[in-house]
Amino acid sequence: MEAIEQRIKEQGDKVRSLKSSKADKDVITAEVAALNELKAELKALTVNDPSAAPADKPAKADDKKGKGGFTLKNAKGTKDYTPQEMAVREKIFSTIIGVFKKHGGITIDTPVFELKEILSGKYGEDSKLIYDLEDQGGEKCSLRYDLTVPFARFLAMNGKEYQNIKRYHIAKVYRRDQPAMTKGRMREFFQCDFDIAGTYDSMIPDSECLRVLSECLTALGLGDFTIKINHRKILDGIFEVCGVPEDKIRTISSAVDKLDKLPWADVRKEMTEDKGLDPKAADLIGEYVLLKGGAELLERLYADAKLGTNARAKEGLDDMTTLFKYLDVLNVTRHVSFDLSLARGLDYYTGLIYEAVLEGSAPPTLANGEKARATVKKGTDELDESTVGVGSVAAGGRYDNLVGMFSGVNKKGQPNLVIPCVGISIGVERVFSILMQKQKKEQIKSNEVEVYVVGLGGVSVEARMKICTELWDAGIKAEFAYKLKPRTQNQWDACDRDMIPFAVIVGGDEIEKGLIKIKDMRSKDESQKGGIEYPRTEMIAEIQRRLAEL
Amino acid sequence: MEAIEQRIKEQGDKVRSLKSSKADKDVITAEVAALNELKAELKALTVNDPSAAPADKPAKADDKKGKGGFTLKNAKGTKDYTPQEMAVREKIFSTIIGVFKKHGGITIDTPVFELKEILSGKYGEDSKLIYDLEDQGGEKCSLRYDLTVPFARFLAMNGKEYQNIKRYHIAKVYRRDQPAMTKGRMREFFQCDFDIAGTYDSMIPDSECLRVLSECLTALGLGDFTIKINHRKILDGIFEVCGVPEDKIRTISSAVDKLDKLPWADVRKEMTEDKGLDPKAADLIGEYVLLKGGAELLERLYADAKLGTNARAKEGLDDMTTLFKYLDVLNVTRHVSFDLSLARGLDYYTGLIYEAVLEGSAPPTLANGEKARATVKKGTDELDESTVGVGSVAAGGRYDNLVGMFSGVNKKGQPNLVIPCVGISIGVERVFSILMQKQKKEQIKSNEVEVYVVGLGGVSVEARMKICTELWDAGIKAEFAYKLKPRTQNQWDACDRDMIPFAVIVGGDEIEKGLIKIKDMRSKDESQKGGIEYPRTEMIAEIQRRLAEL
Repeated sequence: MEAIEQRIKEQGDKVRSLKSSKADKDVITAEVAALNELKAELKALTVNDPSAAPADKPAKADDKKGKGGFTLKNAKGTKDYTPQEMAVREKIFSTIIGVFKKHGGITIDTPVFELKEILSGKYGEDSKLIYDLEDQGGEKCSLRYDLTVPFARFLAMNGKEYQNIKRYHIAKVYRRDQPAMTKGRMREFFQCDFDIAGTYDSMIPDSECLRVLSECLTALGLGDFTIKINHRKILDGIFEVCGVPEDKIRTISSAVDKLDKLPWADVRKEMTEDKGLDPKAADLIGEYVLLKGGAELLERLYADAKLGTNARAKEGLDDMTTLFKYLDVLNVTRHVSFDLSLARGLDYYTGLIYEAVLEGSAPPTLANGEKARATVKKGTDELDESTVGVGSVAAGGRYDNLVGMFSGVNKKGQPNLVIPCVGISIGVERVFSILMQKQKKEQIKSNEVEVYVVGLGGVSVEARMKICTELWDAGIKAEFAYKLKPRTQNQWDACDRDMIPFAVIVGGDEIEKGLIKIKDMRSKDESQKGGIEYPRTEMIAEIQRRLAEL
Repeated sequence: MEAIEQRIKEQGDKVRSLKSSKADKDVITAEVAALNELKAELKALTVNDPSAAPADKPAKADDKKGKGGFTLKNAKGTKDYTPQEMAVREKIFSTIIGVFKKHGGITIDTPVFELKEILSGKYGEDSKLIYDLEDQGGEKCSLRYDLTVPFARFLAMNGKEYQNIKRYHIAKVYRRDQPAMTKGRMREFFQCDFDIAGTYDSMIPDSECLRVLSECLTALGLGDFTIKINHRKILDGIFEVCGVPEDKIRTISSAVDKLDKLPWADVRKEMTEDKGLDPKAADLIGEYVLLKGGAELLERLYADAKLGTNARAKEGLDDMTTLFKYLDVLNVTRHVSFDLSLARGLDYYTGLIYEAVLEGSAPPTLANGEKARATVKKGTDELDESTVGVGSVAAGGRYDNLVGMFSGVNKKGQPNLVIPCVGISIGVERVFSILMQKQKKEQIKSNEVEVYVVGLGGVSVEARMKICTELWDAGIKAEFAYKLKPRTQNQWDACDRDMIPFAVIVGGDEIEKGLIKIKDMRSKDESQKGGIEYPRTEMIAEIQRRLAEL
């Protein structure tokens, strides 16, 4: 707790200094956001979350218990979704699923927990973030960390039937990470994956994945975006010709991956000082990985004396040549940037890799004209991303060997089953944060009620219930007040609060005459304030006519 | 394992004996089903599941590992859903959600795990079935056991904003139960809840819940059903006038609840011998709890010398009188049976309780004319339900005090917040089992593709990709073969396998002339076998016209 208070103090000083030096407005906004996030973290620590102390320090849960002996809160890093939030979340999901289905996607579901050994050895260092279930006798199980490994397990188990499948899966995954709730980094969060499994000709499914990603981001209305692409074999070729030892390739690769958040000097330092790479090799790497562009960059790389003759790089360059041809046909080239600094963290990628970034979330420009870069948090090796926007909103790539890891090996030591895969994962939590910020909570309609049945002049609850029953029987979404004698104003208020478009009004006299009134709640026409009278027998037809016009 | 083999032997003998004595066909079918289930359990034990041994015996996971060192399976009691199963599952969910939304339902979401203490003391004996997360430093958490307790926790935390809410929630819950996969009893399974929270006039929301339940079961097309209803206060009144001590009421109540599966003699024995109830009290209870009927039963109970003057029973009877009046208006009386033997297991119910049973799943009639009853499994106190159909498909009731359990108490010892609730829970896993059995797996369409682009005569992949891009741009769901030179027959096969209604055919010559062909894949018209030719420019409009006619 003291550490965070110290950071709040430092951050406050930083903001004050920026303000007094009249720094760029975007920079100040970003730093204020970072300050607010720290404050929110502190609040969570003190108000809600006795266990937000470092994970190795057991929580003193009793400290914060109310008089009832209860700590009334969500588990750390998890949250409830309110009806308004659910409305936004479901809109996002249905938009994305619509695109997936347009491309022939079908869905599967796998359990929330897997045998522990299924997840072992798949996530490298991040394995420490896996949630284990308590050993209550029986099998050792863990909560899923992503949807990709369970998908590979599913294919290995059912591969004969699903050698070729375009599957999507939207579901929650679990990571014992340090949550940063204000930025949507949670311990329970949704992943949204679309993968094409099967043995096909080079780059055809890969290019369709980029088209699917591009359609999703466009349909979500997130503004302009760039899909950075690169190829693991080109990267491996670069490391090879620059003299990186084979056993250092993955660790040097993950240093390169930080180039979107740190300047080259910092990355070079990590390579040489932390990871022991020869400074000459680092400088050679720097000449390649800072390159970016379009298809024209391919020619330059083919022509490069060293890289152009490297077998691994050559394979990657050939793939990229094919890819760019298809991307033109698919109309997505304009969204794509060939970026040699993109490396992606996960070990299992074997070919094309990509990551989508929203233009609106690019880092702000600093006073010296450079883009703001993330800094490493004091006393940790964690990046402070608070000044570099939301970062990537989607990512993915080709992973041809993951299914084989589950299928066992034959006598020759080869996997029993190989199913090459390529896929995308959309960061729906980030999309959710962005879209929630764009609208006012009060203006989100979370219910779909079409008609509210209003009773006037002491009409009975049975009479209102009867009207509702008729509406329900006709498939119309309707509600009435659950009171014997509801106040008139409360009924109008319910219509307004829930943004219900129509009211059916029943009054004492009219009901005996077989009449009801229908009122358009959105109309400002004073002459129709009391509604328009219809014979009860025409109510359903009239409501249906009006709903069809909505 | 030996125990189950012994039971298979016994059950086999039973089936053979029934067959040789030419017993009722339904009875034989039920007993054969029970035998098959036992065999499936044995198979699970031996083939897949090294840990299906009793939970206190640690699993020898190594036993079953393949050559790759991997046990390739799902965790016990969990399953994957295939695309076909997902299509059925999503149909069920959308049907039910449609009904919930018609009645103004809105949805929330809560995390898969809660603080352990939130779940403590809510489920009585069944608390032993709760999954705990391993203590990896930090808070003690458990997987949710149902959706009701998290909902009550949500209301207690957000009660000011959601004093009145009709919320539905469809999500997975977790129980360390002995799975019986063939009957859909799993360790991970979906619950599907609709609850009305708020302080309203008596029985109005309760009656709407029964209407919602009735609409759901009708919309799912499960055949005739009966909703058994009863009232906790009437039951408590019965126990009081029959002389059951206050501290025995809940345990005697759960004995009564077994009357749908066991004969009265067995239940009476449990009350007197196992639970130490005075036999005279048991006999008095028997006179009441075997009663069932409609609204007319109320008069009989009001007129009953003892029950009619009991204050608790009187409250319950008044509620039921009001309820029956509303059920008439809502048109659901014909589905309802007032059944005094219905008690429901959960402790937290405080008023109306109900349970829906499918007529098609009623127990078969035995040779002696009685309905088949469940028996208690040898050496356990568990009911063998294999002879009594699928049992209830939905249940619920009123629980007015659960939110208060979370809100803490004031100085007078009263809860800080009281939000009365009534709700239904639909057993979607049982519904899923029933609907899956009704259809052939091959006939379930899991994708929604509308057009397959078929290339003939060496047409390039770019040409097919281009056509697909045009279709996608127009919002049409389309696929093409991911091969440079796909075989013609393979393309037709893909259309047939995925039941895709239309093919767009592109051939070498035609493409230069700006022509394509459209073929209706469902048509048997031989003259249209090769498709009908259209100018490329009219393709989208023609496809859209044909799709609109589907």
